[in-house]
Amino acid sequence: MGVCSIKRSRKMRKVCVVITARPSYSRIKTALKAINNHPKLELQLVIAGSALLDRYGSAIQYIEKDGFRITEKIFMVLEGDTPTSMAKTTGLGVLELANVFYKIKPDMVITIADRFETIATSIAASYQNIPLVHIQGGEVTGNIDEKVRHANTKLADIHLVATDKAVERLTKMGEDSDYIFNTGCPSIDIAREVSENPILDFNPFQKYAGVGIGSEMKYKDGYIVVMQHPVTTEYSEAKKQMNNLLNAVKKLEIPTFWFWPNIDAGSDGATSAIRKFREHNDLKNIHFFKNMEPSDFLKLLYNSKVLVGNSSVGIRECSFLGVPVVNIGTRQFGRERGKNVLDVNYEEKSIYQGIKSQLRIEKRKQDYIYGKGNSGILIADILAKIKLRSHKTLIY
Amino acid sequence: MGVCSIKRSRKMRKVCVVITARPSYSRIKTALKAINNHPKLELQLVIAGSALLDRYGSAIQYIEKDGFRITEKIFMVLEGDTPTSMAKTTGLGVLELANVFYKIKPDMVITIADRFETIATSIAASYQNIPLVHIQGGEVTGNIDEKVRHANTKLADIHLVATDKAVERLTKMGEDSDYIFNTGCPSIDIAREVSENPILDFNPFQKYAGVGIGSEMKYKDGYIVVMQHPVTTEYSEAKKQMNNLLNAVKKLEIPTFWFWPNIDAGSDGATSAIRKFREHNDLKNIHFFKNMEPSDFLKLLYNSKVLVGNSSVGIRECSFLGVPVVNIGTRQFGRERGKNVLDVNYEEKSIYQGIKSQLRIEKRKQDYIYGKGNSGILIADILAKIKLRSHKTLIY
Amino acid sequence: MGVCSIKRSRKMRKVCVVITARPSYSRIKTALKAINNHPKLELQLVIAGSALLDRYGSAIQYIEKDGFRITEKIFMVLEGDTPTSMAKTTGLGVLELANVFYKIKPDMVITIADRFETIATSIAASYQNIPLVHIQGGEVTGNIDEKVRHANTKLADIHLVATDKAVERLTKMGEDSDYIFNTGCPSIDIAREVSENPILDFNPFQKYAGVGIGSEMKYKDGYIVVMQHPVTTEYSEAKKQMNNLLNAVKKLEIPTFWFWPNIDAGSDGATSAIRKFREHNDLKNIHFFKNMEPSDFLKLLYNSKVLVGNSSVGIRECSFLGVPVVNIGTRQFGRERGKNVLDVNYEEKSIYQGIKSQLRIEKRKQDYIYGKGNSGILIADILAKIKLRSHKTLIY
Amino acid sequence: MGVCSIKRSRKMRKVCVVITARPSYSRIKTALKAINNHPKLELQLVIAGSALLDRYGSAIQYIEKDGFRITEKIFMVLEGDTPTSMAKTTGLGVLELANVFYKIKPDMVITIADRFETIATSIAASYQNIPLVHIQGGEVTGNIDEKVRHANTKLADIHLVATDKAVERLTKMGEDSDYIFNTGCPSIDIAREVSENPILDFNPFQKYAGVGIGSEMKYKDGYIVVMQHPVTTEYSEAKKQMNNLLNAVKKLEIPTFWFWPNIDAGSDGATSAIRKFREHNDLKNIHFFKNMEPSDFLKLLYNSKVLVGNSSVGIRECSFLGVPVVNIGTRQFGRERGKNVLDVNYEEKSIYQGIKSQLRIEKRKQDYIYGKGNSGILIADILAKIKLRSHKTLIY
Repeated sequence: MGVCSIKRSRKMRKVCVVITARPSYSRIKTALKAINNHPKLELQLVIAGSALLDRYGSAIQYIEKDGFRITEKIFMVLEGDTPTSMAKTTGLGVLELANVFYKIKPDMVITIADRFETIATSIAASYQNIPLVHIQGGEVTGNIDEKVRHANTKLADIHLVATDKAVERLTKMGEDSDYIFNTGCPSIDIAREVSENPILDFNPFQKYAGVGIGSEMKYKDGYIVVMQHPVTTEYSEAKKQMNNLLNAVKKLEIPTFWFWPNIDAGSDGATSAIRKFREHNDLKNIHFFKNMEPSDFLKLLYNSKVLVGNSSVGIRECSFLGVPVVNIGTRQFGRERGKNVLDVNYEEKSIYQGIKSQLRIEKRKQDYIYGKGNSGILIADILAKIKLRSHKTLIY
Repeated sequence: MGVCSIKRSRKMRKVCVVITARPSYSRIKTALKAINNHPKLELQLVIAGSALLDRYGSAIQYIEKDGFRITEKIFMVLEGDTPTSMAKTTGLGVLELANVFYKIKPDMVITIADRFETIATSIAASYQNIPLVHIQGGEVTGNIDEKVRHANTKLADIHLVATDKAVERLTKMGEDSDYIFNTGCPSIDIAREVSENPILDFNPFQKYAGVGIGSEMKYKDGYIVVMQHPVTTEYSEAKKQMNNLLNAVKKLEIPTFWFWPNIDAGSDGATSAIRKFREHNDLKNIHFFKNMEPSDFLKLLYNSKVLVGNSSVGIRECSFLGVPVVNIGTRQFGRERGKNVLDVNYEEKSIYQGIKSQLRIEKRKQDYIYGKGNSGILIADILAKIKLRSHKTLIY
Repeated sequence: MGVCSIKRSRKMRKVCVVITARPSYSRIKTALKAINNHPKLELQLVIAGSALLDRYGSAIQYIEKDGFRITEKIFMVLEGDTPTSMAKTTGLGVLELANVFYKIKPDMVITIADRFETIATSIAASYQNIPLVHIQGGEVTGNIDEKVRHANTKLADIHLVATDKAVERLTKMGEDSDYIFNTGCPSIDIAREVSENPILDFNPFQKYAGVGIGSEMKYKDGYIVVMQHPVTTEYSEAKKQMNNLLNAVKKLEIPTFWFWPNIDAGSDGATSAIRKFREHNDLKNIHFFKNMEPSDFLKLLYNSKVLVGNSSVGIRECSFLGVPVVNIGTRQFGRERGKNVLDVNYEEKSIYQGIKSQLRIEKRKQDYIYGKGNSGILIADILAKIKLRSHKTLIY
Repeated sequence: MGVCSIKRSRKMRKVCVVITARPSYSRIKTALKAINNHPKLELQLVIAGSALLDRYGSAIQYIEKDGFRITEKIFMVLEGDTPTSMAKTTGLGVLELANVFYKIKPDMVITIADRFETIATSIAASYQNIPLVHIQGGEVTGNIDEKVRHANTKLADIHLVATDKAVERLTKMGEDSDYIFNTGCPSIDIAREVSENPILDFNPFQKYAGVGIGSEMKYKDGYIVVMQHPVTTEYSEAKKQMNNLLNAVKKLEIPTFWFWPNIDAGSDGATSAIRKFREHNDLKNIHFFKNMEPSDFLKLLYNSKVLVGNSSVGIRECSFLGVPVVNIGTRQFGRERGKNVLDVNYEEKSIYQGIKSQLRIEKRKQDYIYGKGNSGILIADILAKIKLRSHKTLIY
């Protein structure tokens, strides 16, 4: 009834979620749905940064296709892929998001994980005394992400983390345990759905085009997936590292689905390495994709023999799915991992042998360090009920 | 010799200090001197934000008068004195300071304490992989400063703190104890110098003009000093709180040196309260100043009967100097304090009685919780010797 | 009927007007009303810059009180009142307004006259291929406004000007005469309304407070009005010029309604001159106001003996109203003026004698160089009918 | 002598030139040299925008290789290649360049031609009352450039134009003829040098790599050059237009040197068209280059049979060199052109036949509409002698 719904809407909490990149969307998607469906919550979705840009497989198409209404779009990425442009992108993000929050007046703002520009969301919200919710704090890695993640924690009022270890770390850091919740990671929710119906029911070349060997690739008998991102603080090395990986995978001669690196300092080095390698080599076992819908990507992973690279999907979703992973280099350093993960360094030989070794084993059992697949629902419930605050002190 | 000096200069570390407000300069001044004088350090001084603006008693005149060479000036303050303009000022600061650091390529950058815009310095430096030194982390207060201070800590690589308690807190927060140093607060260095020669050797009205009763004020027989800043997250209250204080001080009829509030959300409420009060009241015991040179201000304090307000000078310098303090409200909440401090709330009566009570006592003994007066030298020594890093993880 | 109104609304043109300062609102107000009332137009009102700020008598209260719905508010003014901060305010304006236009997708954008930040509106619209309407181009003055006005002309697609002379100038400048219209100045519309009912039916001190002599001022027997703004390119002189004017007016001993200067480089010089003068002089014939509602202000003018200063109101509205004007200095240089205007330089003596001379004469007849008082209606009609374009070349 | 040189340097005028793109550098290069060599001028070179970015064949390497000292580098390009990002890039440019001019305090600033971001230079200079010199105003084209160029004129104090027609247009637009000079276009200076020694003395594939058929291309017997940029206001069409051109050139089977499009709204459409075409076609007569040094490029042109595309080089340098040109579409609309130019539309057939037709003719005679090759010297002389001003009014 009209009157009733008006009354109810007055009590609804406006939850503003800022998504600045494709992987952040994949990670948070089930929580967005749960917020949208919750009778006491109203979703305000802000899409910003590289999530709007074609060059990085723009997330926005998927978001719109999934039926979410977008409240604001914010263009803020400076060209250059250098540390300087990362800093300036962040500054511009603060300017823009301050406007947005001033205008749409959310009851709380959600910032996700640890990408460099997520701190823009944190500053724009906390400086305007809007309760800030940080998702996936308390983890440990080893580059600029590490600093950003913990700074986000210190600007945030409410912490929704993915592991028991993360709860423990935030408590040690002086956060109030009444405001720390282990919800698991919402990305596991999708992994759970996929694991319940994991058949590879689409043709990757038809649905996503991409470039490379294409339909001649006989992947039905077994294939691997590669997803390697440049490591921010070592960006001059990006080219060399990518070349090593390309050589190792070429030599393996196994059908390979390869995903382009995301935006970050160094990505131009990495992507140009791939382009040049393709020009100078006749690659008979590789096809390159920009992006897939998260659930398609997880089906592809579920049915693969090994995931190679440094994506967090190897650490999170693959632990739940039980897919063997060859994790390259320092990007996931410090993250809790299941037995499915084998760590190797950037050398061609290490990568090659690591993949060989993982190809030999059977699928491992699932484990639940990052949650049981009900994170989205848990998150929405907490946001609907928690007492809001925009003020805090160290708990020591 | 020429050749020799060139060789030496190649080894010199470029230390960039960003000063965004008058009180930050006062606090850091002896460290700047020590850096300037150190054979292995080269000072790069960036003056930004309200430190450039007349309206808040621009720090820049004092800095230039003290003989420091200024490397860059950065205009970044948005008008409005609202939480939104604070956020946007910070975003603009990131944009501008990213440029500056890109250009002057410091070996390390120093960010000071916890003003809202100090995080701009932290982001611009850490995102460009420049080692970040944070001065005066690990303290506890109770508003947006609290969030900013600890976020600065999490972005910083090297921590120079002012108390043993701060060392303890940073260690608990997971910072590497090899990179935490208790140097004391450099503001105590100036307090020490002043305490060695505390004669009030200038005429405040002639030297600083100001407005009010002026030279008719018979302050030689005893006076108080007032310095009350608006409290960020309660800015709509700023007017009322200032009126209570004005009424209390008026009633006391004791000669009073009153300093204008600094820039922050709410300062327009506070300053307009003062302006209106002056228009509607015949104030026979108050003279208002915008600013004094730090050493003059400390002499004034040293010879005063009580300091009233919520300035950190009451907590820090006055503990060393042994001046009784009436500390109003929540601004210094959680800061370690000596026995010289009496805390009162915002009510006129509490303030009035608090001052009366502090006027009755003799000067207390000095105590050294914020250092012994050699912080500047200690800081320069550490910066010259410490192994630099721009990378870290939690120590748990 | 529902269906009908939906059909109609599909044909409505969205007209976005950006107002960045109080005087711009006064000037455009009747056009806003006419746009709002027009069946084929939908008004999108963006309030930005100093129009949002208390310090300059924020226009926004009047706008809301007049019943306009505000689509967006944009904080963009940098502190400092220097040429550098003017430039940076403009840059920030482009950034912000580009967002706004991207989001609200107007069919055309209106930029008003020649304030420094109006070019931000012009760039944000024209670069996004949105037809740009410039109001009050083709006039001639003599400072940075001159450059801004004609640059706005060159970015604009449609020109709504206030005089025949302006039409002539734009044609000479190579603009297409099919897109140049002499609508007169909408500020004359209000002057016309006031001239039809000019009784001073409010108590200025009660309604607008202000500071100064107040109700003791016997203004009913005749008074003057002062409104003097700093001149941008001479801002270091602002103080001296204001002092000359203050001295002249003080000496006259005639009741005086004095309005504070608006925001511009130099305004801090001008306002501090006024503040200091008030402190050091016992002003028995002056009361200071920040602002009045436009119609009240015009009533005050209509009933005054002389308007003194350099406001454009002396040139425009006063020509229609027939009020004698002493116009000081270069600010209105080159603007067409009626016989009611006497030009003087910045010297105290010139100002004093100029006022004396104007006091002696009777009211002159109205003249209509800036329109007959129907501009608002004319403007709305043109915007509803004109063929839109965002493309042009010189017509030579 | 030391003393003498110090005295002289005091009288030197600091000329700041802002270069935001590769073609602007090529166009202005001989003027930069002449300024650098002039005893009364000191060059301050600011490199900004796409001139810093690899993706567009960064100009900065050539600038440094040519021996110019760079005073400041400004990163300001927003990702996205949309009209919105063009506007935001411009806003950011104003913010950044305002800082730069504040710091380096030039006696005059030069803005070049009509790229969208050149107005940022104009605003940052003119708003700070620095005399603004505009190079190559008074021309006529037909898109957003048209608006930008004439807005630059209106913000500028001194006009250095390339043709008699441009002088005439600026005079009509109300500019003071004492401040308009026909210097010719400095790009002709390089064309003159090249025409004096036009031998193709480098191997394009060895010196510039590029991608495509490479050294198998038998270009010594005759070749064409292609340089086609996207047209700003039609950016959705960019892809289609580029495909037509690719098809026409493929069909011709003549050795072809093809240069990538520059940065502008639409360039992603254009570049992705090229990439896809290359993937799906076996191109036996085309080699693609990002960039060449200007003099190498001109040698290549001098020895070519036809230049195809919409680059201004076809209009300017080629008129001096006498190279036949097939000019496609609207980009050069309105520019004065020599008899060497044949205009065609975007259809494949028109392009194909146009090239065929131009291939048949002998080289035409040189003509001098854009100057005789001494522009750089003329420009430096004027800048050294002209009376500076930052103030102007329409001359009507």
